[in-house]
Amino acid sequence: MKIKELQNYLKKNKIDYCLLLNSEKSTDHNFTYFTQIPESMTVYSLLIIPKTKKPFLLVSRLELSIAKKYSRIEKIYKIEKEPLKQLKSIIKGKRIAVNKNNVSLNQYKSIKKELKAKFIDISQFLLKLRSTKTKEEIKLLKKSCSYASLIMERTINYCNGKKTELQVKNFIEDEIKRSNLEQAFPPIVASGINSSNPHHLSANKKLKGFTVIDLGVKYKNYCSDITRTIYMGKANKKEIEIYNKVFKVNIDSINSKIKSCSKLTINAKKELGEYFIHGLGHGIGIEIHESPNLKEISKDKLKENMVFTIEPGYYKGKTGIRVEDSVLQTKNKKEILTAYSKDLIYK
Amino acid sequence: MKIKELQNYLKKNKIDYCLLLNSEKSTDHNFTYFTQIPESMTVYSLLIIPKTKKPFLLVSRLELSIAKKYSRIEKIYKIEKEPLKQLKSIIKGKRIAVNKNNVSLNQYKSIKKELKAKFIDISQFLLKLRSTKTKEEIKLLKKSCSYASLIMERTINYCNGKKTELQVKNFIEDEIKRSNLEQAFPPIVASGINSSNPHHLSANKKLKGFTVIDLGVKYKNYCSDITRTIYMGKANKKEIEIYNKVFKVNIDSINSKIKSCSKLTINAKKELGEYFIHGLGHGIGIEIHESPNLKEISKDKLKENMVFTIEPGYYKGKTGIRVEDSVLQTKNKKEILTAYSKDLIYK
Repeated sequence: MKIKELQNYLKKNKIDYCLLLNSEKSTDHNFTYFTQIPESMTVYSLLIIPKTKKPFLLVSRLELSIAKKYSRIEKIYKIEKEPLKQLKSIIKGKRIAVNKNNVSLNQYKSIKKELKAKFIDISQFLLKLRSTKTKEEIKLLKKSCSYASLIMERTINYCNGKKTELQVKNFIEDEIKRSNLEQAFPPIVASGINSSNPHHLSANKKLKGFTVIDLGVKYKNYCSDITRTIYMGKANKKEIEIYNKVFKVNIDSINSKIKSCSKLTINAKKELGEYFIHGLGHGIGIEIHESPNLKEISKDKLKENMVFTIEPGYYKGKTGIRVEDSVLQTKNKKEILTAYSKDLIYK
Repeated sequence: MKIKELQNYLKKNKIDYCLLLNSEKSTDHNFTYFTQIPESMTVYSLLIIPKTKKPFLLVSRLELSIAKKYSRIEKIYKIEKEPLKQLKSIIKGKRIAVNKNNVSLNQYKSIKKELKAKFIDISQFLLKLRSTKTKEEIKLLKKSCSYASLIMERTINYCNGKKTELQVKNFIEDEIKRSNLEQAFPPIVASGINSSNPHHLSANKKLKGFTVIDLGVKYKNYCSDITRTIYMGKANKKEIEIYNKVFKVNIDSINSKIKSCSKLTINAKKELGEYFIHGLGHGIGIEIHESPNLKEISKDKLKENMVFTIEPGYYKGKTGIRVEDSVLQTKNKKEILTAYSKDLIYK
C-alpha cells in the first residue's frame, strides 16, 4: 500500500533498500501489506523496495503463478537456487532496512553473510505506517466489518437453548466459508461458566445464561472483529445491571474525545474494576492484532484513519460479558463499523 | 515428548536451561512438541527446561485454562506483568539454549537485556531430535495418515466431471471438519492445465483430464500428507505411460535401500527428468514440513522411526501428476502409512 511513504523514509534516512523476508515458518505481515498476496499462500519469498526505483519480488518457482495473480508489486523474479546469492547479484547498497521483529537470528546470519551492509531496524516505522489506513484500506475494512456484523446477526438468530457452543462455532465457520471469506481468528463461543474465560475453546456444552460470541472475517486480506453477548433464558436484575455497565463503557469509550490509548483503558478499568481482565482494544488491518495498542501500558495515541476495536468486558463466574466493536477514528469522532445492535438479546 | 533426551544434551553441553518462546507472531513448533498444547491456541508463552529439574511454563492469564487442559508440562505459572523479568527472578543460569531459527532479533535483544547469560543455538539439535519419532508419535502419525487416506477415498468417490476444483476442495475441508480434525495445510485440487502447477489454488473450474488431489489432516497435533492423481475421462497411451512412470518412481523410492536423501532424489530426477520440479519429499510430524529434507542439496540420512513423504511428480501442460505417500522408515524398509490405492482411477 503506502510504498511512497516508505520510500520517502528510506531517502530521509539514507537507506538504500528495505528487504522484507516472508517464509512458511515466519510470516511477515508487512510483506502481505505491500504485495497483497494472501497470507495463506506464500512460501519463501523476498520483497525488495529500493529508495527510488521500482520494488520487486523474488519468489520460488512453485509460487510464481500465485504471485503473478495477486501481487501489487509488478516486477517478479523467479528464485533460481540460492535467493540471497541471487539478490546479491541484483542489489548494491550499504544500508539496508530489515524488520527485526520478524527476522530470526539465523536468517539474519545468512543475510549478513551474503549482503555485506549495515542493517537498520524498520519494524517500528512499519507498525506506525500501517496503523493509519489509506482510503482503499478503509473501504476494505468497512466491507469486512459489515460481513462480520451480518454473520453475527445470523449466528444470534441461530442460537437457542438446545444448541451447543461447538454447534454455534461450526455455524459461524460455515457461514464464513459460504460467504467466500476467511476467518480472521477461530471464533469464540463461550456460555454459562465458560463465558468468563475470554479465550475459551468451545465445548460440547449447551448454551445457558450469558453467552459471548466473538468472531471476525478476512475480506481481501483485511480483518474485522465483533463480539456480542446474549442471554439464554431470563437474566436477573443484577446481571442486567452488569451488562448495562459494560454496554455503557463501550459507548462512552467510543464517544470519548480522549486520544491517549492508555487513558481510555484506565478510565474503562475504573468503571469495570478488577473483573475487566484485558486491554480495551487493538488495531486491526492486515493483522487481527496490530497498532494501536489499547492497553494501560500503551504509549499510542489515536489518530485519524486508525481502525481498532473497543471491547470492554467483565469476567466473573457465570457472568462473562464482552461488547466489542470495530471502529474508525475520523477527525472528530469514532465511526462504528460493526453496526449490529448491542441491546441485550434474550433467546 | 523427548524431554529426557533434551536434558541429557543440556547436561553434556553444560547448558543450564533451554528457553523456548512462543507467540502469536512466531510459533515455535518445539514449544508445541514438548507441551502438546495445540498450536492454534497459544499466545505469548515461555517454556523453560532446566538441565535436571522439572520443566515449567509461563503463560498469560487468558491462556491459563487452555494450558492446564492440554499441557504435558505440569508446572504452569501465570505471567504477572513482564514475563522476562518474572523469569529472571525464577532462573539462575549462565548458559541458556534458545532456538535461533525462531527467535527474532528484537526478541533476542529483550531476552539478553533481562537474562545476562551466554545464549547457545539449539535449533539444529531440536530439528534432529524431532526427526525420529517416539512410539507414541508413530501411533498418532499412523492414525493421522489413516484419516487422510479415508478422506482421500471419499473425495475421489465424490469427484466427477460436473464438479469444480473449488467444490472438491470444499468437500475435503468439510470432511476434515466433520471428522473433528484440523487441516495440515489448505488442500490442493488442480485439474487440466492447472494440474501442472504443484501449488495451484483451486478455482471455479470443472474437473477435466489429470486431476491432482493433495490433502493432509492434523490428528492431535500430528500431520499427514497424501496425494493422488485421477483422470476425468479417458487418458491416452502417452498419458498412461507418464502416469505409470511417476507411479513406478514412487514405488521404487519406497522400496529402495538407499539411506542418503540426496541420492534418492537424484535417482528420482534421473527417471523423471526436468518436469519433476520439486524435492522428493519432506519429514512430517508436528509440522507439515520438518526434517528430514529430501532434496538434492540435503545432507540428511534416513533413519529408523523417521516419518516422511515420498512424492515424485511430473508437471508439463495438461499433464500434471503427483503420487505421494507418507511413510515410516523401519529398520529395513519403509512402511506406507497412506494406504489408499495408487492405480490410475478414471472418473
